[in-house]
Amino acid sequence: MAANAADVILTNGLVVTMNALGDLIPQGAVAIKGRDIVAVGAGEAILADWEAGQVVDCDGAAILPGLINAHTHVPMSLLRGLADDLRLDVWLFGYMLPVEREFVSAEFCRWGTKLSCAEMIRSGVTCFADMYYYEEDVAQTVADAGMRAICAETIMTWPTPDAESYDEGLARCRHFIEEWVHHPLVTPAVGPHAPESSTPEMLRASVELALEYDVPLLVHVAETTVGVEETHEIYGVSPVEALQQHGVLQAQVLAAHCVHLTEEDRAILARHGVGVAHNPTSNLKLASGLAQVTRLLEAGIPVGVGTDGQASNNDQDMFEEMRLAALLPKGITQDPTAMPARKAFAMATILGARALGMDHLVGSLEAGKRADIAILSLDTVHNVPHFDLSPDNVYSQLVYAAKAHDVRHVMIDGRWVMRDRELLTLDEAEVRAEAQRIASQVGAFLARREQSLVDKLVALGTLQWGETYEVQVKVRVPEEDAVVQALLNCPEVMVIKPSERKQYDTYFFFDDPETGIIRYREDYLLDRGLELKPIYNLTLRGPAKEREYADSVLLSRSRFTADADRSMRFYREYFSPREERKVDKLRRRWRVKYRGVDFAVNLDRLIQPLADEVFLELKSRTWSKHDAVQKAEMISELLDVLGVDKEGLVGDEYVSF
Amino acid sequence: MAANAADVILTNGLVVTMNALGDLIPQGAVAIKGRDIVAVGAGEAILADWEAGQVVDCDGAAILPGLINAHTHVPMSLLRGLADDLRLDVWLFGYMLPVEREFVSAEFCRWGTKLSCAEMIRSGVTCFADMYYYEEDVAQTVADAGMRAICAETIMTWPTPDAESYDEGLARCRHFIEEWVHHPLVTPAVGPHAPESSTPEMLRASVELALEYDVPLLVHVAETTVGVEETHEIYGVSPVEALQQHGVLQAQVLAAHCVHLTEEDRAILARHGVGVAHNPTSNLKLASGLAQVTRLLEAGIPVGVGTDGQASNNDQDMFEEMRLAALLPKGITQDPTAMPARKAFAMATILGARALGMDHLVGSLEAGKRADIAILSLDTVHNVPHFDLSPDNVYSQLVYAAKAHDVRHVMIDGRWVMRDRELLTLDEAEVRAEAQRIASQVGAFLARREQSLVDKLVALGTLQWGETYEVQVKVRVPEEDAVVQALLNCPEVMVIKPSERKQYDTYFFFDDPETGIIRYREDYLLDRGLELKPIYNLTLRGPAKEREYADSVLLSRSRFTADADRSMRFYREYFSPREERKVDKLRRRWRVKYRGVDFAVNLDRLIQPLADEVFLELKSRTWSKHDAVQKAEMISELLDVLGVDKEGLVGDEYVSF
Repeated sequence: MAANAADVILTNGLVVTMNALGDLIPQGAVAIKGRDIVAVGAGEAILADWEAGQVVDCDGAAILPGLINAHTHVPMSLLRGLADDLRLDVWLFGYMLPVEREFVSAEFCRWGTKLSCAEMIRSGVTCFADMYYYEEDVAQTVADAGMRAICAETIMTWPTPDAESYDEGLARCRHFIEEWVHHPLVTPAVGPHAPESSTPEMLRASVELALEYDVPLLVHVAETTVGVEETHEIYGVSPVEALQQHGVLQAQVLAAHCVHLTEEDRAILARHGVGVAHNPTSNLKLASGLAQVTRLLEAGIPVGVGTDGQASNNDQDMFEEMRLAALLPKGITQDPTAMPARKAFAMATILGARALGMDHLVGSLEAGKRADIAILSLDTVHNVPHFDLSPDNVYSQLVYAAKAHDVRHVMIDGRWVMRDRELLTLDEAEVRAEAQRIASQVGAFLARREQSLVDKLVALGTLQWGETYEVQVKVRVPEEDAVVQALLNCPEVMVIKPSERKQYDTYFFFDDPETGIIRYREDYLLDRGLELKPIYNLTLRGPAKEREYADSVLLSRSRFTADADRSMRFYREYFSPREERKVDKLRRRWRVKYRGVDFAVNLDRLIQPLADEVFLELKSRTWSKHDAVQKAEMISELLDVLGVDKEGLVGDEYVSF
Repeated sequence: MAANAADVILTNGLVVTMNALGDLIPQGAVAIKGRDIVAVGAGEAILADWEAGQVVDCDGAAILPGLINAHTHVPMSLLRGLADDLRLDVWLFGYMLPVEREFVSAEFCRWGTKLSCAEMIRSGVTCFADMYYYEEDVAQTVADAGMRAICAETIMTWPTPDAESYDEGLARCRHFIEEWVHHPLVTPAVGPHAPESSTPEMLRASVELALEYDVPLLVHVAETTVGVEETHEIYGVSPVEALQQHGVLQAQVLAAHCVHLTEEDRAILARHGVGVAHNPTSNLKLASGLAQVTRLLEAGIPVGVGTDGQASNNDQDMFEEMRLAALLPKGITQDPTAMPARKAFAMATILGARALGMDHLVGSLEAGKRADIAILSLDTVHNVPHFDLSPDNVYSQLVYAAKAHDVRHVMIDGRWVMRDRELLTLDEAEVRAEAQRIASQVGAFLARREQSLVDKLVALGTLQWGETYEVQVKVRVPEEDAVVQALLNCPEVMVIKPSERKQYDTYFFFDDPETGIIRYREDYLLDRGLELKPIYNLTLRGPAKEREYADSVLLSRSRFTADADRSMRFYREYFSPREERKVDKLRRRWRVKYRGVDFAVNLDRLIQPLADEVFLELKSRTWSKHDAVQKAEMISELLDVLGVDKEGLVGDEYVSF
């Protein structure tokens, strides 16, 4: 009689342990009690030593550690296939950010998370690392689905869907951590988006929060060359060095992407025990670059594999991801022995667990670890035949041949979440219907509001992201020279770059005011009175003013600019506006620093519509509510410094005069 | 009442036509009569105009042109997962060729083809281009499975599993074409393996055969840099130029791989209307290189996508293949707009059909074409949600999200081959069992015969393919000087490179003679009597003599060599031989050309075991039965020329003395 009592015994399968010895056990068994694995071994031995109410015959199947998705944004499932094959800036600023600003809510995140969980369970994923917004809703949904995850609340210097500023984001994150820090399945975490979308202060505040509660810190690192350049501009060093300098690597850090690293960066990551999440599909699809994964592994860095969000993949299929993780290094290094299947499978299991700092709990099938297990059919046609010349034959099959749909059963934390490909913790039909309902709203929004003009600009091929958010004020000034003298004489104003311009603007208006407005500008730089060859550009501006502060300081919406290298006739036919209006002006412009902050100062004299007055504009780029409030106050001060009478404040654009 | 009679109407699905206008028809329908599509259009219109005994509701599904796998070796399914993550030469010469020599038979090809057909039908493939051996058995199996294919009999200068020489291969191919040239589903074709495994004569004979019967010609082109270099050595030009020079491009050519091309190569392919089969997984997995697919398309070349055989993929999944075809160019060109999903889907359908020269028959859903159709469920979790902002949303979903298992029904040539994921023309359980039976024999053979030593050599990391086949003779010569004088004085012998060497050989013998023999050699080049620093190498030799010709000329088996940069003690422990034997000798060696053909001439004086005689060895590399016969004759002549008495002929190796 068996001496020990278990709850479930999985038997008669090929047990792929991923333990330190790399044991493979044909006709093996795994005994589970409560949340834990209590024994792993030969089937006969386990059945002799243990008894259980439930014995599951895994004939013709492999018993695997549940796969670990090391980097994703689960609610983005609702944006799957929305906008692909675009330039990164167009994709991010043209589609993802506007849609996220408009739609991402607690409800959006709950349904998006359910859809991703359904997809992940179906493909044998039991644990993942997430970064998004409304992370408390993500966490609750994950817990309800019975999955294991690290959930990081994303913090950015820009306004995000759930925080107007990074300070607000940090406060939300603190609250979230306090609520979830002791949960058995969900580990809350701090998610400063990336060094280039942070400030040094924000990075320091983030790591302090992570250390205070001893939770992980998730961050995007060196995903694109542009991000690396921006980091150099802000911090004067590489992204990894910036994290080190500001103490971030004191926390338990999971760094996503790590595409563009130096030798020194890798040494720093290794020294600080940082885990890396490699995202081969996303890096290819967004043309971010080719991560040197073999070098990361050689440096002793634990590297996991992640799908990234569905908006850049477009799925959560870890079988596809580990296959690509195995294939890509061979092509990059021109060495077919690079990244053998066994190593790729390790990245999707035990190395991924190590990258997440969870290898004491998951990533392998060993007594004492949590029962996170996927059972995979090996008898489908694409899995036939089997060879047993070496263990490599098994890993080859798992990585190069097996597919997500081969996953038959999934258990997480000792609980069945899928049996015979039937999800037990999610109502799949409901999830699909709700996902489609929300996605249809997103589609309608884009079709109505920004889609056609952005698309048309995109199609012109030179679209660039211009400003993000801008605070600005406009005011009539009767005494132009007095303002100029005040500007040049003020000790707190440093003039960086003065210029004079003649600007001929044509505005296109459309039937639906929600469509936005296109501006075609010929911008002549005047040099000793001569009109030099102009710069032609197109700008698409959304219709809305985001917010208004004291003294009519406006926070204006994001906009796109594109080079305009075609004729006015072309644009007129191409955009078919309902109405055109012209604004021509002479602009004297100064780029200045006022108390160390960048502002643009414009003195404009309208030629058409002709106006006697001169208008002063003060503008500055901003990225958070807190920052915008501060800059709005500085603009008020600057108006005082320049001796401008606030009676002349104007709320409208020139084109609305 | 509907006026026209069809056999089947597929209705209420999203019809992805891939016609010239790129029409997508939501709630569309396709009417089929006999083998042909007779109407495509809006569901209501079709149902009003046509009636059919069978109306299939495709709600929630897409109706697609069947996918076209542009390059594969279908019987190699039986070698799936046998040997991965190896260097190309080790993989090919160490595993694939030995196994193919031993196992590939008509029976092997029939079961392997069945397995591949099952896999392809399950993933929506309706048509493919194959190159292998026993192609008449492949063809019969394909026809029985109801699939459409181009089947090319592979021809090589080396002996192949079904032909001792290329002339025999061409004769087989001619017979095969005659039998199959009028078949409705299978198009027979000529498959010269690659320029570097051909001779100019063989290429010319191949294209003559293709032109005589007006059948396609399939060939590997510029798959690896080594192949390109070998082509330059043989032909003095690039692979594409070699094909052009020898008239091959007069045929309708499908060129597989095309990884390493020049601008001029692409121009030549475009000018001759050559189709290209791009194999992204295989090229990555074998580290062959990264094909410049976007440039091929820009040059106007029709490019299809192929899986290659399962030994280098490891599956026949065209969904994975077209996804990778879409992702890879973005990473290579650093442009995320490269190869949009729509273009990748076209490569898997209409462009693939064009590459195969079959776009008048298949590749799109249009009245008048054959009814090759896949119906794909769009309602699985990984396919949710859907957007309809532009046609790109549909192609994004098909390429980036959909999976092989989403294919629900497949029709080929108007006949259902899969309904509700049930195969109708193949007995899947039988196919799986037979595939495993054969694979188990392959595994046992490798484990027994070559596996352990090759593996051990591979593990040393410097394994190289040495000779392929060699004809050689050994003979005692009483008068060493007389032979040397004859050699140097013969007008038909040109001496290229003389040298003197001292060679210390240690042979390892193993219990099972089938294991082969390892030779450890210290090879000192003697320069003015001094022993220069030796070259150390290891050679693994199989046990068998392949064949024996007149005058004891032997055709010997392939062997592997590896640099030996470790100690004798190490190798002794590492290989654990049953027995060691030593052979030390002084060797005078000449590389010569005799009547334009390369030979090695060795005059050996044994030191250990000491022997008074001098031995003459004549050797030459060979690659076909015909060539071996010819060279064996030349060796006999050369013996006469050198005045050697054939009484002294020796059949054994020195180590067996």
